[in-house]
This record gives sequence, C-alpha cells and structure tokens, in this order.
Amino acid sequence: MYWLNTWYVAGFSDEVAGTRLLARRLLDRPLVFFRKPDGRVAALDDRCPHRFAPLSAGKLCEEGAALQCPYHGLRFDGNGRCVHNPHSKGSIPTAARVASYPVEDRHGLLWWWPGAPALANPDLIPDYSAIAGAHPDGSFRGYLPTRCHYELLVDNILDLTHADYLHAGTLGNGSLTRAKAHITDVDERTLNVTWLSSGERAPPAFAAHLRHPEERTDQWTEVTWTAPGNMLLHVGATLLGEDRSQGVDVLTAHVATPETGSSTHYWFWATRTFAVSAAENARIRSFVEYAFAQQDKPMLEAQQQNMDGADFWALKPVLLPSDAAAVRVRRKLAKLMESQ
Amino acid sequence: MYWLNTWYVAGFSDEVAGTRLLARRLLDRPLVFFRKPDGRVAALDDRCPHRFAPLSAGKLCEEGAALQCPYHGLRFDGNGRCVHNPHSKGSIPTAARVASYPVEDRHGLLWWWPGAPALANPDLIPDYSAIAGAHPDGSFRGYLPTRCHYELLVDNILDLTHADYLHAGTLGNGSLTRAKAHITDVDERTLNVTWLSSGERAPPAFAAHLRHPEERTDQWTEVTWTAPGNMLLHVGATLLGEDRSQGVDVLTAHVATPETGSSTHYWFWATRTFAVSAAENARIRSFVEYAFAQQDKPMLEAQQQNMDGADFWALKPVLLPSDAAAVRVRRKLAKLMESQ
Amino acid sequence: MYWLNTWYVAGFSDEVAGTRLLARRLLDRPLVFFRKPDGRVAALDDRCPHRFAPLSAGKLCEEGAALQCPYHGLRFDGNGRCVHNPHSKGSIPTAARVASYPVEDRHGLLWWWPGAPALANPDLIPDYSAIAGAHPDGSFRGYLPTRCHYELLVDNILDLTHADYLHAGTLGNGSLTRAKAHITDVDERTLNVTWLSSGERAPPAFAAHLRHPEERTDQWTEVTWTAPGNMLLHVGATLLGEDRSQGVDVLTAHVATPETGSSTHYWFWATRTFAVSAAENARIRSFVEYAFAQQDKPMLEAQQQNMDGADFWALKPVLLPSDAAAVRVRRKLAKLMESQ
Repeated sequence: MYWLNTWYVAGFSDEVAGTRLLARRLLDRPLVFFRKPDGRVAALDDRCPHRFAPLSAGKLCEEGAALQCPYHGLRFDGNGRCVHNPHSKGSIPTAARVASYPVEDRHGLLWWWPGAPALANPDLIPDYSAIAGAHPDGSFRGYLPTRCHYELLVDNILDLTHADYLHAGTLGNGSLTRAKAHITDVDERTLNVTWLSSGERAPPAFAAHLRHPEERTDQWTEVTWTAPGNMLLHVGATLLGEDRSQGVDVLTAHVATPETGSSTHYWFWATRTFAVSAAENARIRSFVEYAFAQQDKPMLEAQQQNMDGADFWALKPVLLPSDAAAVRVRRKLAKLMESQ
Repeated sequence: MYWLNTWYVAGFSDEVAGTRLLARRLLDRPLVFFRKPDGRVAALDDRCPHRFAPLSAGKLCEEGAALQCPYHGLRFDGNGRCVHNPHSKGSIPTAARVASYPVEDRHGLLWWWPGAPALANPDLIPDYSAIAGAHPDGSFRGYLPTRCHYELLVDNILDLTHADYLHAGTLGNGSLTRAKAHITDVDERTLNVTWLSSGERAPPAFAAHLRHPEERTDQWTEVTWTAPGNMLLHVGATLLGEDRSQGVDVLTAHVATPETGSSTHYWFWATRTFAVSAAENARIRSFVEYAFAQQDKPMLEAQQQNMDGADFWALKPVLLPSDAAAVRVRRKLAKLMESQ
Repeated sequence: MYWLNTWYVAGFSDEVAGTRLLARRLLDRPLVFFRKPDGRVAALDDRCPHRFAPLSAGKLCEEGAALQCPYHGLRFDGNGRCVHNPHSKGSIPTAARVASYPVEDRHGLLWWWPGAPALANPDLIPDYSAIAGAHPDGSFRGYLPTRCHYELLVDNILDLTHADYLHAGTLGNGSLTRAKAHITDVDERTLNVTWLSSGERAPPAFAAHLRHPEERTDQWTEVTWTAPGNMLLHVGATLLGEDRSQGVDVLTAHVATPETGSSTHYWFWATRTFAVSAAENARIRSFVEYAFAQQDKPMLEAQQQNMDGADFWALKPVLLPSDAAAVRVRRKLAKLMESQ
C-alpha cells in the first residue's frame, strides 16, 4: 500500500531536541522519535510489546540511551532492544523488542526510512541545504495536517497554474497559465518542471518587491520533485531584460508525507534573500500561510472528499496539458511502488 | 436506493439569488445550484471533471452564464458544458462536462429532478402558492438538518397524534388522539389525512387566539402528502358551531428531502392569517421552532439511532390505527420505487 | 460476544431516585432504568416497540407503575408489558411489549442481569457493603466513560505495579514492583492478588497520613476480582512492625462494565477511615481523580487505539511475571464465556 524503500520526511529536526519525544503516525504506523546520546535520532514503533502502551507517553532516560514505557517501566534503546525490566528480577524477555528504523537528520529535517535498513542510502536524500541555511528573518516554516492522499498535494505543486485561480490577486495573476511548462525527466525519482514567461507583470506578492512594480518582467517558476513527496521551488521575477540577481526570488520546500491513505503531513519552509527583517518576515509569512492553510488545504480536502474513497484514475479525470508533470510523477510513483 | 423520477425540494428560491451559489448534497450527490442569465436555476454535479474540485467554491461569471472552477479556472454553463479552458490554448476537451439536472423555481422553493430529464414534468409539483403568497408578518420558515431517514419525518407528520405527547401543552392537548382520522387516497403520489373533532378545547397555541380560549371548539387538522416527502398542513379551530373563517387556521409546509440514507433536509414554512404583525410573528416563531427543533428533530434522530441501520419493517413495529396514513404512504413510496 | 449470565453494575442506586429515569447502553443494548412503586428497580429495552422512540425520553407515571413513551403515549410497566394505549380505543396489541431484565439494588449500586432471568441469583453479587457504608466525608465516587475494552481496565487493576510508573510520586514509589504478588484462585468467578512489602517507605499519598512519613513501613495491597469486571481493593501502610489498625488503609471499588466492545463504563468508589472531613475529602478526591481520569483513562484509551481493533492475544503480548493475575482472570473470563 505504501512505497517502503525511500526516505520520508518525519518532521523538523528540532522536534526531537533534548529529551523531547516526537510521536507521529507515518504510513499508518505510530512512531516515536528521540535523540540518542550521540546526537543521532532514533525511530521506534510507538507501542510497547508488553501492554501496547504508547512509548511516546513515557520519558527519555540515561541521556537518551533508553526510552521508558509510561505504563510498567520497561526501557528500550534506540535499536528497539529492551535494556531494562524492573519486574522479573531484571531478566529481559527475548521477545521484548520493538521495531526500529533508520533516520537521518539532514538540512533541518528528519528523514525516515520504513523499508529494508540495508538499502537506506543517505545519498538518496535531496539537497535542501539552501533552505536550512537561510537567514532566520528571511525564512519561515509551517505544518498543515491535511485530510487528503499525499499525491493530491504533489499534484497541486506540480501544476502551479492553480496559483492563477486559487491564489489570484496574491501569488497568481495569470502569467503561469499563459507560460509554457518545460518538463525535465531527471531520473526515476526526480523530475523538474519549469515555467518561464517574459513581458508579463509579476503577481502582486512579487511585484511589491520590484523596483518598478507595474512594469513588465521576466518570471521563472521551477519545481524539482524528489520521490515520494518532496518538492523544492524557485519562484521569482526581475524587470524585463535584467539579471535574475536584480529581481526577487523565493526558495520554498513543500513536503508531503502520508499519515494514512487519506491524510497527509504537509510541511512548508519558505526562504528568500530580499525583505530580510523580522517585520517583513512576519508580514509575508501571514499572507503565505493564508494561501497554504486557507486556500490550498481546503481545496485538497474538498478534492479528497469529492473523490469519496475512489482511486484517482478510476474517476477518469479530464486531463489538460497543464497536468503533464503531475501525471508523469504519478506514473513514476506507480512504477516505484510496483518495483519493490 | 432512491426514487429518481420525481421532484425533490432542494432549498428556498432565494438561496441562489444573484451570484450566490448553493452547495447541497441531495440523495447522496454533491450538487451546486446557481441562477442563469435568464433567471432560471441550474443544478450541476458539484465536482469539476478535471481535478474533482467543488465548483461551489468557485465563482459565477458572465452574469450567470458560467460557473468557474476555483482550482484551475475551467468554466461550465448551466447545462454542464465546459465553455472556457484557459489552458490548452483554449481548446476544450470533449469529456469536460458535468451532469446537469432539471430545476424548477416555484412557490418560493427550488424543485430538483434527479431522474430522466425527459420525464421532468413541472405539473407534478404540488401547489404551494398559498404558502409563498402569505404576508411576511404572518409567516416564517426554517431549515433543520436532521440525522434520520426522510421517511421517519414523513411518518411523523402523517401521524399528528404525536402532538398530544411530544408537544403536549403547546400544539397538543389530547384532542387529536381522541379524533378520528379520515384518509383519502388521492392518487399514487398523493394522500390526504384529516382529523376532525367537535366539542374539545383547542390546544393552548390555538386557544390563545380564539375569542373565548377556554370554550369548546370545532377543530380540523388536514395533511396533504405529495410524494416523496412534501406535506401541506391545514390546522385550525373555531368556537363550537361557528364558521371556520371566524376561527384560527395555520397553513404549513413540511418538506423532507434525503441528504443521505440517514440524514434529511427538513424545511418548514408556516403561514397564518391571524396575529399578523412583526411582534406576534417573532413570538409564534420562537415556540414553533422550539417544537420542531427541540422536540421533533431530537425524536427523529433518536428513532434513527435506535433503529441502528435496520430497515423499518425488519424491526417489526407494533402498528396502531393511528399509523394507517403513514403505512399507506410507505407502501406507495415502495411501489413508486419499484416501478422505476 | 458478551457473557450474559452474570450481574453487571449499571450505575449508582441514586441515579434512579424518584421519577428520574436512567438511560444507559450496556453490552451494546440501549436500556432504561426506573424505580417501581415497591422501590425496586426495573430495566427495560430503551426502545418503544411502536415507533422505536427512546422510552427514557418519556416520563414515569402512576408513581412508577408505568413509563410513558414520549412520542405517542403508550405506557409500559416494569415488566415491559404495555398497560395503556390511548389510541385504538384502549385496546392493547399483544405484541406491544419490551424486554425487561432482573435488577438488584445492592450496596449503593444497580446490578443488571442480561441473561436467563431464572438464573439471576442475587447471591452472586459481591459484598460491597463496606463501601456503601463508609462515612460520606471519608468517601467519594466517580464515573469515567472510557474508550477501551473492559478487560483492559481489569488488567490495569490486576497489575497494580503500574502505580510505580503511571502514578509515580503519588500512588506509587516502586514498592509494589519490588514486592511479590500472591495469587489466590478463589473460584471460577473470584480471584485475589495481594502484594506485601516490609521495610519500604510508603508512597507519598499514604506516607503523608502516617505518624512518621519518612520511616519504613509494612505495606499491603489486596485486589479481589469478581467476574466480570468488579474489583475491590484494600491498600494501606503502617509503620514497620506496627499493627495495621495504627496505619492507614483505603478500600476502593473499581467497576468496569462494557458499554460496547470498545468502550467501558468505569465507576470508582473510594473510602477510608482516616482523614475523614469535608476538606480532606475534597483534597484527596482531587488528586485521586487526577490519577484515574488523567493517567489511567488516557493510558487505557491509548492501549485500545494502539491495538487498533485486534484481539489481545493475537498481538502476542510479551508477558511478565507481574501479569500473572491478569492473565488468569482473562482465562477465567474466556472459560465463563465458552460455558454459556
């Protein structure tokens, strides 16, 4: 039902800072994440094998070396082995262990691997270092639990012409719909789609930061998708004929990780090199969050509800040229699923 | 599962005034209603064939000639045809259409026909003109989303002896239970049940408006049911032996349209020719709404819950003579369902 | 699915005082309880056989001799027989009756018997008279609707070592885990488990009431389980070597009755002979309720959720010696279920 041999984002790195435990359901599995004494992050099934209590309601002991069950005090290390049993005169039942998973803490994100541990190659993690390294006053991030299949969110980002309608007046002004999309099929796990236009005014959210907001521009919108649900966006505009560096450019990550078959963890992390100040950051954050939380999220949830549990293809969607990137990605995901 | 070749009330006419869209689920279908340039009302499936977005979250364009999808801007006319595609250089995929349905706007109500359009005969719509034409200060209307099968609401109105118990002290005082019901089987879609009594005091809600509230009266209660769930009630009282016109009389429509198999749109519209003033209207409305919303609706929902998904007849109800009209109507509905 | 030939607690006796009706779902059946003219308690299916209205929404008539349906006025006596029909000229349909059940009102609790009435032997009811007879300022009781299978609550009480972890710092300090449990298998419906320790400090909640809170003690914890979900606890401590009567002792009933297969009515009733005053009672109640409502209940509900509908044994729990009593009780219940 899920593709297992891949990295999924599980959350932000600092969600497991110190003794803080992170409980999160991914791919329909309850998991608990915590930081070990060596600073690396552990992921275990969030269910004690004794009485099925959630370990995430327990506490981290021995400086991260052991997670103690809240119910009867069994302790498990980062590999899921029971390392302490206060009952039975300290003897540890051999069956007392929980599943553990590879985790990488990279670019400010936790990457979790549900499949065969031997295949967990960190080189498969996309490079989001530019996001993680942005100035704090030029970046913000957020989390939207969204009641839809994660592929609907992937579709949403891979057809950004929706900005012209769903985000009309802020992020879109029709220029994307009029632009042509160029798709680059990088490899089985990676695809790039780029919209370029020349001579259009920039959408209001961008125009406001240009030297001459009302003048014509060159615009670029580039999405790099990495399987299964990671998307890095470069969106920007510069006055017609000027160098990109003289314009404005935002770099945003949109990440979709399945919680269940009908709900998705949606994280976004937006960065920019202009308007870098606490006041500007707060203002920009507020309208961008509005777009994602009050426009995209309700749309995704309405689609899911309208699909009423049916498979996407079974509903015979009418496809447009603007769906090309999303359709290719759906086919890639289907192929990767089959190959496992 | 539903009877299709019939008119169902979808709401009040003014719910689609101007550019206002009405989203409503009827017979388990999400629908969107809007007013076309010619003033007539359109009903479409509330699901864009492209990405399954709810069209009701979009906007009405071209003075009602087109409904624009909120997600990627496709536009559909009142017949469900795609009339504008901003993508694909304007070419319109032939598959891009949504189902449309006949709608009549009559007597202040929207009548929707889910079956074969060719059979949608407006003459089958019952005459509720007297309701629609009542003085504003002598009428009020309301909407109660009710978690029960619509036939339970039909049963409720077709056995008004319940007023003596459920609405004791306001709408009932035992006189209905002591009266005899006369049933007239008008045709396959219509039935009338009338209770007459002579010599009883009027129930408090009526007595208060008689010249001598404590005196004996002639009372009448007439329900005309029109399939599937439309009921028009004449209820009144006059002092014993006097003409009806000297007494009080209320004319009320109760309408039940299935939302799903276990939830019902319940509309009521109550009118009268006495106590016609804004103040009296507010006072009467308040206690009538109390009866419908705080007594009938909870009872209907409790019945539904107690039936726990079972079929009414499978539960072997103990029938009383007072159930005669409701039972006949249930049989008529079963016959009409089978005949389609 | 449920064991029928046994007494289940349905609530506190005073929940049906006077004309007050008690509606409660037990073993997935909606029931109504009321007090009859002779002071005994009746239990009927909470569903009128006419139109399936909940009788508990009606009213008690004739000094408890009849319960009137709220919808159309049929009346039923404590045996479920229809004794009044205002319709049909008073004739009563023979089919008009509802199921009735044996009920005993004993020790301040209502005991309900869902099985064969002929087998309803009141001698099977455990003796909770000491609970019911406690001083009002030395006792309190509560109700926690808990979303778990009732056996999880039984497990919880039969392995009180959980107090050392879940209630660490109040009800537990590790002494139970270090004690040895002695199990006495009384009969097919009764089991006793006792933990004794000597030389340990008392847990904070008990120590506070000892003459020398910091000194070493003798401690006792005794649970007597009576099928299906009734548990009586003696828990106390006295200074090392002193007589129990010089120490502190609490006597508490924990009762688990299935509402459905995944929800439980949880009643507790705690009594003691020390700190008997309104002020002390309020203070003690507040932290005990915190333990039960904010620690036990969330744990039970988390276990239920983590088990995700699976059978307990199917999940292959890792058993510890401290599970011995709970496991024996589960086997007894399985045997009693099979024997019926």
